[in-house]
Amino acid sequence: MTDIAMIEAARARLDGHVRRTPLLSSPFLDEIAGRRIFVKPECLQHTGSFKFRGAWSAISALSLEVRVKGVIAFSSGNHAQGVALAAKMHRIPSVIVMPSDAPRIKIENTRAYGAEVVLYDRANEDRDEIGARLSKERGLTLIKPFDEPLVIAGQGTAGLEIAEQAREEGIDKADVLVPTGGGGFISGIALALEAKAPGFPVHPCEPEGFDDATRSLASGRIERNATQSGSLCDAIVTPQPGNITFPIMSRLCGPGLVVTEDEALHAVALAFSRLKIVVEPGGAVALAAALFHGETLGETVIAVCSGGNIDGDIFRMALDRHGG
Amino acid sequence: MTDIAMIEAARARLDGHVRRTPLLSSPFLDEIAGRRIFVKPECLQHTGSFKFRGAWSAISALSLEVRVKGVIAFSSGNHAQGVALAAKMHRIPSVIVMPSDAPRIKIENTRAYGAEVVLYDRANEDRDEIGARLSKERGLTLIKPFDEPLVIAGQGTAGLEIAEQAREEGIDKADVLVPTGGGGFISGIALALEAKAPGFPVHPCEPEGFDDATRSLASGRIERNATQSGSLCDAIVTPQPGNITFPIMSRLCGPGLVVTEDEALHAVALAFSRLKIVVEPGGAVALAAALFHGETLGETVIAVCSGGNIDGDIFRMALDRHGG
Repeated sequence: MTDIAMIEAARARLDGHVRRTPLLSSPFLDEIAGRRIFVKPECLQHTGSFKFRGAWSAISALSLEVRVKGVIAFSSGNHAQGVALAAKMHRIPSVIVMPSDAPRIKIENTRAYGAEVVLYDRANEDRDEIGARLSKERGLTLIKPFDEPLVIAGQGTAGLEIAEQAREEGIDKADVLVPTGGGGFISGIALALEAKAPGFPVHPCEPEGFDDATRSLASGRIERNATQSGSLCDAIVTPQPGNITFPIMSRLCGPGLVVTEDEALHAVALAFSRLKIVVEPGGAVALAAALFHGETLGETVIAVCSGGNIDGDIFRMALDRHGG
Repeated sequence: MTDIAMIEAARARLDGHVRRTPLLSSPFLDEIAGRRIFVKPECLQHTGSFKFRGAWSAISALSLEVRVKGVIAFSSGNHAQGVALAAKMHRIPSVIVMPSDAPRIKIENTRAYGAEVVLYDRANEDRDEIGARLSKERGLTLIKPFDEPLVIAGQGTAGLEIAEQAREEGIDKADVLVPTGGGGFISGIALALEAKAPGFPVHPCEPEGFDDATRSLASGRIERNATQSGSLCDAIVTPQPGNITFPIMSRLCGPGLVVTEDEALHAVALAFSRLKIVVEPGGAVALAAALFHGETLGETVIAVCSGGNIDGDIFRMALDRHGG
């Protein structure tokens, strides 16, 4: 199980390879929210999302003998790019298994980060079977996207930074809002803050209709989403919280906050005009919650923006609708 | 005259108030340029540009007695916002004198940062006369945009950060590219690097048709631009280098690099898709030079992105033209 010692060990392995993203703020956002908002922009991380932290943590922890054979991941999103670049920087091979109908730009980006992309036909092929065969043939190690202690430890390094940066800013109490899919990121952050900044409540943030973490925390057991696609916030949509992440979230996080897609797009537009950062809709749900659903929160909020891999068309839509 | 001691003193005054902007990079940009590119994103600075550094430096250096009476500046752009916020954070009044036909959004933003905006009619009123009268009546201190040693010292704090961050990244030699208008920013950076990272050549970058610094460095005397408006890169357009900044540039900087407006827009689009930052066209000319005019540069380039205050319409134009 991930604990603070594992997170600190991950931080030592990531040192010099990961970016320490800054804390940003704007008086304009404070005014909208009626409270102080600080933003932790993980969109500025390598590959445009926090996923690089977990990927580096997991790959760097492998024994040299195992590591050199390479790694494999199933993802068409931010995890794919994080694993591909972390593997490339370790000078080891990576294989990313993606559905053949994944957007071409995601396939190209993942290849450009150095991965071998293996496409499969969603209708007729079994992803897990392909992965198992490749792993066996080549001795590849599977890097899971969230339900894996070393990945959670890597994501937790962002929590260590938040604790330090809050101290630097003189913040002694804040609600910490984290965009949540499978729960790896929020679990790591919550474990780090439990040790380094106790009294900073941690809240998962999700889009309407895909609020499995919020409902699971409310009911006390793992709840599923009714649908699994069709959200603009695709980066953080997963069927349900993980078996490893849910107990951590259950102990340390909540209650969850839910925003509409349009609120997420509004946060994208405000991050553009007021913070000068590019955030994807899923990555903006915590900022949206801080801006538009802060009633239950304290005077100071730290909203994590988890990723910035957004298509130009969606970005234009955010600016068109919300006057950027 | 500004020297390294003044820059270090400015840094001590700015400590805890200014953001230490990170160094960003992307393998995609390296590939386009055929060299390693690091980006120093001053668009992430308070008020969205480096101007906050110089404003803070100048205001914080005033004696308390003088400071409390307030400050005044002539600007409708980034300098206005930098002075307004730095004054607000010092809890002193600021007056910003702007033409009455300045874009409404710039007037509103400057007011929102806490300034009193005084509008004048460009056709019938004399800006300097209005400023002189207000200064006399209220005891306001004029904060010049670039030709002022304390402002140059404040901008130089970005150069101290560049020297440190280069060392952290293991960069022992790099060409440093800086968007240049009046020359305050590049002068400060060049003075800091002269002391802290000698052997890092510093180059001004400008848009075609507004390349007064490049031509002045080539001829050895101050050259003027033929026109003074009509550039998308408005943030860095000035009539000519300053009387204080030109001798510094002349001793420490050059040769200049000139890019087209379309190349600046292309850099805006690539900063969006690859770095997840919002850069204005004028702020992107150094990145554009690194990407598209690097033939004369070494293996490693540090391109400063000086500001991110861009209208949504211009941003859309950049994405439309260059496939963001």
